[in-house]
Amino acid sequence: MPLPIAVLVSGGGSNLQSIIDTIEEGVLDAEIKLVVSNRARAFGLERARNHGIPTLVLSHKDYRTREDFDRAMVKAIHDHGVSAPHGAVVMAGFMRIVTHELLAAFPDRVLNIHPALLPSFPGVHGQGDAADYGVKISGCTVHFVDEEMDHGPVIIQAAVPCNAGEDGDELGPRILKLEHRVFSQAINWLAQDRLEIQGRHVHLKVAGIPLADAPRADVEPSCCALVCPPLEEGF
Amino acid sequence: MPLPIAVLVSGGGSNLQSIIDTIEEGVLDAEIKLVVSNRARAFGLERARNHGIPTLVLSHKDYRTREDFDRAMVKAIHDHGVSAPHGAVVMAGFMRIVTHELLAAFPDRVLNIHPALLPSFPGVHGQGDAADYGVKISGCTVHFVDEEMDHGPVIIQAAVPCNAGEDGDELGPRILKLEHRVFSQAINWLAQDRLEIQGRHVHLKVAGIPLADAPRADVEPSCCALVCPPLEEGF
Repeated sequence: MPLPIAVLVSGGGSNLQSIIDTIEEGVLDAEIKLVVSNRARAFGLERARNHGIPTLVLSHKDYRTREDFDRAMVKAIHDHGVSAPHGAVVMAGFMRIVTHELLAAFPDRVLNIHPALLPSFPGVHGQGDAADYGVKISGCTVHFVDEEMDHGPVIIQAAVPCNAGEDGDELGPRILKLEHRVFSQAINWLAQDRLEIQGRHVHLKVAGIPLADAPRADVEPSCCALVCPPLEEGF
Repeated sequence: MPLPIAVLVSGGGSNLQSIIDTIEEGVLDAEIKLVVSNRARAFGLERARNHGIPTLVLSHKDYRTREDFDRAMVKAIHDHGVSAPHGAVVMAGFMRIVTHELLAAFPDRVLNIHPALLPSFPGVHGQGDAADYGVKISGCTVHFVDEEMDHGPVIIQAAVPCNAGEDGDELGPRILKLEHRVFSQAINWLAQDRLEIQGRHVHLKVAGIPLADAPRADVEPSCCALVCPPLEEGF
């Protein structure tokens, strides 16, 4: 049975699109039961509707506390057939700090993607902060969510080169290409029950699945990337 | 004329050894005029003596303040023919915070190497802190030194994979292999006058020098690395 997931978005949802695409390609063994946004105008909602996926807008302004908001979100997710221990929640550009209410309902089943090599550059401006700092290498991180922002155990990271003089708008798209690949990969490992958390370390169980050729054709040689653990076939 | 440098060490000095080796191979166009250590037993001193390089022990315990210590060090370095604007100071595992006394004597001419992808994991336990955090990618950073620890503008970074369950002793040697290559490369760029600092960004001037084949033979395919800017021939 495919992994039932709810995807949380606040914005454009290009990571949601890549999840949809890899599911439709038969690469990612998951089913999006619900897309939740805290913003009615999030383009991610339209992406979901285009693929017949149920959507829900929950405005955080309608809730007194973060906990109240999260309780309403958990109820909606449960109502759409996504619950622990099998279901999972995927934060794909969701610009809200989540609380114990969500995490207790989905223990070790909430994933987030962040556009920097955590613990460097947490927060909402990962790409711009990295560019401004002048790092030569940045990237993205998929991690389990805990109650600290951008902090939980790391599942996969991808590193890309940064060029002197670049700003976040130039660096961002290079990172985003990798986000699309590593996020679906991480969700698929969860779907395959191959992730094991031991303290801060996430172990990946072996499955005899061939590794992807690295880099893939859509990553130019001049923009090579380091991905760890390596991407498997299809991602 | 080769770049006159002073190298500061506190410990084993394997990065010093790689600088010595790449100079002797004719790859790095520099000359080590003096090796300074704040510890009499630093093995780095023996490495220097083995190659006929002058050494000096300055115990920080003999100086009342960090500034006094740095003034004595600057005097010794000057006395050995290394001074701004042409000379440079290279911190190769030097476990002391340097002060304005050194930095004012060598403006934009003090380099440091750190065994992590700064700004992640500054401080004296870069490898262990990264391993404990459970990152999937770590690495090393060569940067210009400013008055904040592990903070100045970044010249080059190298990223390597980290494996779940590893500690700093397992991760460290994988990073160290890259340290040896990127540090000599960065010093050579300085020797070639190809580094230009603009705010936080270090620009590398083009020189038409072929890039090294990446990865080199001493980096196993299973332990590939991402280096930016790319290593040039010989490094």
